[in-house]
Amino acid sequence: MTLFRPNIDRMAGYMPGEQPQDGGWVKLNTNENPYPPSPRVVDALAEAIRGPLNLYPDPLGTKFREAAAKQLGLEPDWVLPANGSDENLTLILRAFVDTGDIVAYPYPSYILYETLAEIQGGEFRRLLLKPDWSWDHAAIRDTIQNARLVLIPNPNSPSGNLWRTEDLLKLVPPRGVLVVDEAYADFSDASRDAGLLQQPGGERIIITRTFSKSYSLAGVRFGFALAHPDLIAGMRKVKDSYNCDRLSLAAATAALDDQAWMQANAERVRGTRTRLSDALKTLGFAVVPSQSNFVWCTHSTRENKSLYETLKSRKILVRYMAFRNVPYAQDETLTGLRISVGTDAEIDALLAALKSIV
Amino acid sequence: MTLFRPNIDRMAGYMPGEQPQDGGWVKLNTNENPYPPSPRVVDALAEAIRGPLNLYPDPLGTKFREAAAKQLGLEPDWVLPANGSDENLTLILRAFVDTGDIVAYPYPSYILYETLAEIQGGEFRRLLLKPDWSWDHAAIRDTIQNARLVLIPNPNSPSGNLWRTEDLLKLVPPRGVLVVDEAYADFSDASRDAGLLQQPGGERIIITRTFSKSYSLAGVRFGFALAHPDLIAGMRKVKDSYNCDRLSLAAATAALDDQAWMQANAERVRGTRTRLSDALKTLGFAVVPSQSNFVWCTHSTRENKSLYETLKSRKILVRYMAFRNVPYAQDETLTGLRISVGTDAEIDALLAALKSIV
Repeated sequence: MTLFRPNIDRMAGYMPGEQPQDGGWVKLNTNENPYPPSPRVVDALAEAIRGPLNLYPDPLGTKFREAAAKQLGLEPDWVLPANGSDENLTLILRAFVDTGDIVAYPYPSYILYETLAEIQGGEFRRLLLKPDWSWDHAAIRDTIQNARLVLIPNPNSPSGNLWRTEDLLKLVPPRGVLVVDEAYADFSDASRDAGLLQQPGGERIIITRTFSKSYSLAGVRFGFALAHPDLIAGMRKVKDSYNCDRLSLAAATAALDDQAWMQANAERVRGTRTRLSDALKTLGFAVVPSQSNFVWCTHSTRENKSLYETLKSRKILVRYMAFRNVPYAQDETLTGLRISVGTDAEIDALLAALKSIV
Repeated sequence: MTLFRPNIDRMAGYMPGEQPQDGGWVKLNTNENPYPPSPRVVDALAEAIRGPLNLYPDPLGTKFREAAAKQLGLEPDWVLPANGSDENLTLILRAFVDTGDIVAYPYPSYILYETLAEIQGGEFRRLLLKPDWSWDHAAIRDTIQNARLVLIPNPNSPSGNLWRTEDLLKLVPPRGVLVVDEAYADFSDASRDAGLLQQPGGERIIITRTFSKSYSLAGVRFGFALAHPDLIAGMRKVKDSYNCDRLSLAAATAALDDQAWMQANAERVRGTRTRLSDALKTLGFAVVPSQSNFVWCTHSTRENKSLYETLKSRKILVRYMAFRNVPYAQDETLTGLRISVGTDAEIDALLAALKSIV
């Protein structure tokens, strides 16, 4: 006798990227920022850890919401803080998706969305992208029509490309909600405002953002959603009362206040990204032009999986990925390496290793 | 057209206790520990905030699990850390409860369980307690037989009483899971080990514990579940990959390491609890003997609600509660005040105010 719901029993569970707990790794596999957070964050934390840790945090994260709203020209009731973007995505599934409802997302893309649909008992549908990572709007029209939820990372992972607003607006389901997951947007040419929410259909769009990438706070777990207050109010009913703790609220509010620090790091990442992409091409890789803090590449002659394994044996971690059921790929399986943009020294170490391998 | 699931649309959402963000309050409404956490916690946090905050935390919280398991004489795969007990309760609902499944809990008790059932689309059933807060096992047998999940806070809230192991074992549903929510157990005479899990039926019991109460870390958000590894493995499939951040993991591990600090604070709370209970009786309150860090009391002649309001006007916050559909209560509504055990000075201020009111 199983005690679990059948969908939980059936599923395998999401496997996050490897997080070795020992030292000495060149870690380019989970898109962390290689630079530390703003000193203002550490100062704010140093103050917060001597504050009243015995008392519950503000359940609504009011100070953070006011700061984020002010920066974006919105009211605070358009903002929902969460324990990482992961939690906001989970809240969205739980608020909008009933058993059997259709959850659509581009493919190849961030497969966590499939796991979230499975947990919730929804039915996921893959919106097959063209080989150049653009949309085949005609082919996916029916699925969009019937979807409760469409989830789009922009820039996309693993490809790193950025889709235009006009593409996104075609993906708003007429009887559901579009989520634009902007985890990597600070590394792109994308507008950093929330103008998408003011477009036609914008009242059914949710933008999610995170402090894990551009703000160098993956270890602290903090993200936020932006949407019309009616959507935020419903999501708030689903969240735990105290989903964000005193320390992450203090860290995120301080990080938001130091835009210059974040932008300088993002600019460094963009510079290293160009150098990495160019070098990979000279080593025989096909490289998708990236608007993110990672690069997707596939070697013309070598097995991507064995490249990953050889690098790992040298304590260099990148992400090997294999997407099945991609009709235009060899054996219908698209494989490649997703390489996070580390420091210049880390990328030098990677390139030196690759040179000796390929 | 509503975009939300019908159950989300219908529900009101849980209302946590008031958390005033301004100062000057005597705050006795949400069962926080009035004493600060161990200095070892602050030291561990001071180190952690200078660590690699740009990197994701260990998704499994290995160090914490090892420390907690060692203390309890279990293996680490019996332990699941979470973003507060709230998150573990949510994970349990999502792992075990399908649409229409029965979720049972004692009544009057912690009504958050109803909200969690509503969010998940389950059907909650109230297991009516006798006026002395004991179980009417014969009356609830059928509900237990049919439940997927039974949730029991032990000690109970708002009453503060502790149920015996033999009562709990009768509440394990034959086709489901019993959750014993031990948020307040450190303030009781309860065994602090996990022996319940070794009892007959223990393979279908989950114990949840929190660092919010006895360890004085409500502001940090950390709790953990204890259960057979098969149950923990299924719950892990549902959780977000990085549900606990680097700082809360460091804080909780350090707090666990200083048992003497926690025990000394729990002992102080027990002493003040006795004094508070005795004084309330002399002021005309009926007081349930408490095994927790709060006291449930009802005045013999005054309206409990107006007492709450008068206290609030003097910046003293206690929790007024009204439980409807209690057949043995006046107007079928059981009302009372749940008063957290604060410092001696806070309780003196409360008692002085009450003396001048009643």
